[in-house]
Amino acid sequence: MKQRIYLDNAATTPLEPEVLDAMMPYFTTHFGNPSSIYSYGRESRMAIENARKSVAKILNAHPAEIFFTSGGTESSNAAITGAVRFLGCKHIISSVIEHHATTHTVEHLHKTGEAKLSYVNVLPNGHIDLKHLENLLAESEDKCLVTLMHANNEIGNMIDLHKVGNICKQYNAIFHSDTVQTVGHFPFDLRNTPVHFITGAGHKFHGPKGVGMLYINENVKIEPFIHGGSQERNMRAGTENLYGIVGFAKALELATKHYEADSTYIKHLKAYMMEALKKHIPEVDFNGDPLGESLYAVLSVSVPKSEMSEMLLFNLDINGICASGGSACTSGADQGSHVIRAINNNPDRVTVRFSFSKHNTTDEIDTVVEQLKKMI
Amino acid sequence: MKQRIYLDNAATTPLEPEVLDAMMPYFTTHFGNPSSIYSYGRESRMAIENARKSVAKILNAHPAEIFFTSGGTESSNAAITGAVRFLGCKHIISSVIEHHATTHTVEHLHKTGEAKLSYVNVLPNGHIDLKHLENLLAESEDKCLVTLMHANNEIGNMIDLHKVGNICKQYNAIFHSDTVQTVGHFPFDLRNTPVHFITGAGHKFHGPKGVGMLYINENVKIEPFIHGGSQERNMRAGTENLYGIVGFAKALELATKHYEADSTYIKHLKAYMMEALKKHIPEVDFNGDPLGESLYAVLSVSVPKSEMSEMLLFNLDINGICASGGSACTSGADQGSHVIRAINNNPDRVTVRFSFSKHNTTDEIDTVVEQLKKMI
Repeated sequence: MKQRIYLDNAATTPLEPEVLDAMMPYFTTHFGNPSSIYSYGRESRMAIENARKSVAKILNAHPAEIFFTSGGTESSNAAITGAVRFLGCKHIISSVIEHHATTHTVEHLHKTGEAKLSYVNVLPNGHIDLKHLENLLAESEDKCLVTLMHANNEIGNMIDLHKVGNICKQYNAIFHSDTVQTVGHFPFDLRNTPVHFITGAGHKFHGPKGVGMLYINENVKIEPFIHGGSQERNMRAGTENLYGIVGFAKALELATKHYEADSTYIKHLKAYMMEALKKHIPEVDFNGDPLGESLYAVLSVSVPKSEMSEMLLFNLDINGICASGGSACTSGADQGSHVIRAINNNPDRVTVRFSFSKHNTTDEIDTVVEQLKKMI
Repeated sequence: MKQRIYLDNAATTPLEPEVLDAMMPYFTTHFGNPSSIYSYGRESRMAIENARKSVAKILNAHPAEIFFTSGGTESSNAAITGAVRFLGCKHIISSVIEHHATTHTVEHLHKTGEAKLSYVNVLPNGHIDLKHLENLLAESEDKCLVTLMHANNEIGNMIDLHKVGNICKQYNAIFHSDTVQTVGHFPFDLRNTPVHFITGAGHKFHGPKGVGMLYINENVKIEPFIHGGSQERNMRAGTENLYGIVGFAKALELATKHYEADSTYIKHLKAYMMEALKKHIPEVDFNGDPLGESLYAVLSVSVPKSEMSEMLLFNLDINGICASGGSACTSGADQGSHVIRAINNNPDRVTVRFSFSKHNTTDEIDTVVEQLKKMI
């Protein structure tokens, strides 16, 4: 079998060995329940609280604003549902290019009659029409929840959290941003960012799967999404995923430490692939705004549809190359990408998303481009 | 420091090394997103589906009835909320000695007006008054959800799932049982058990924390509790806790394989401790029905209140003995046990819960009883 080339880092990333090392003691000797009052349980509690402090410090938030969850999806569910049920947001403004963790949650709340739902326009380059957002907010008779993702997981387009947050502030709206693609990939300064909720998922930045984070700004108070024990200061019930939380914090710490070098390197890989594709496959195009406000790790490539290109992902797979048509979370459903449909519903094009990590190389990209050339 | 004696296995159990071994490849080489369509993602998908098949086989259920979650608490939230919102159960019948994962969820649904709430009487020995349950069901004008735990985590009392399930059936009620203390500790035969929902948590039977299971009987259809991607056949969104799921299945497999020997041994430890306590501390009493329908792993000990005994857990801790006052999930809250209050609100007694695993020994119990003797 050929060496695998993994270019689907927006779906998930390999766990950093150093992160696993940090988790290991909690799989073996330190197994106490963090809620137990004896000293052995308090060791686990301490590990969680240290993780919380570390995450808070990195994001420039208060530890009391950081809640650990089972992942980005649960975090977004908790934030959106919480804003509707406990902060009086009876009108949700979102976009059709959000991750399904958002769209399916807002659609559910709309269906049950708990909130009105409006979609802000998306421009052809994949960016949010901020004028339209402002109009929607200005015209709304209800308190609004605006939920717009920081970086789109399929096309990479980014919003300016400050710009959107300030518009929300002006209209007294609550602002949730799905930041699953950017926590661990961008510096955050939450104390100086006008956002009420952001989310994170460990496995997107070389941390473990099954653990996430929800930031809740100290100025808003919601009730828990999952009811039960008094874990996470009564905000998220259930015995804590101790190893996961330790791993999340360690991965975020490492990502932050190496951010400058890693992001510069990955940005260069993306630019390199764009150039190579343009050079070798002139028919290629790129979805979104890859050279503008865009996630440095994601490149959404569009090629003309043909018998060959329709089998592109399949043929890449045969050649040991991992890439995706869109979000992994929906690829099982096989309905194509709702994001690509929204911005560029051209039936004559096929989309492949490549997403990079520090482990990728230009050699790998050369191989992939060469393969693509044969396939198109 | 003294050797630690861990007698709080109802709070959490040490991870079995063999379980960790089974999880390890997914922390290192097999990191693909189970939802990705390329072969590398399908390896992860396969691991999850094999885990599901294994769990289903052990519980004698269909794989399509097994859903992996972040833990027992999420599972109970999903089942209870699902029954109210999607199965037309506008009346919940529960008991005051349930775990907070149940009580706080049903109280929330009651508070929001989504369901009426009745509590079935609890007898002084901690058992559910089934006559009263039947009366409540007979008198209800609404379709009911009955939610009663299989084995109480604090006093060990067990219900007969068949008996309760058949009563529910008679009145067309939906039956959810929190089986977090029994999955991995008792044989289940779900195809022949009249129950709609049961739950499990990996860390209660030497599996990992942060992963659980929800069994949904094939005859009932609810919508997801967490919305988003199409994971878990559209029933539980969020990138799967791959290692956790693999570990859950492996731990259940091992627990089942060694069930006869382990349960016999642990039952013997419980009886041994009861005898030793009665012999050395005549004032001792036991909450619940420890020699009757009771979980073999849990012993709830009651001693007369004194200046010394009020410090019991603290002094046990100093001597390296891990035991608890009640549920770990609530011990942080320090409000005493709602279970003990409900069955025996004697202000002159102090309760300590000891819970055993296969790793405990009679020597450990001798040491603990000796220490207790000094402390009381």
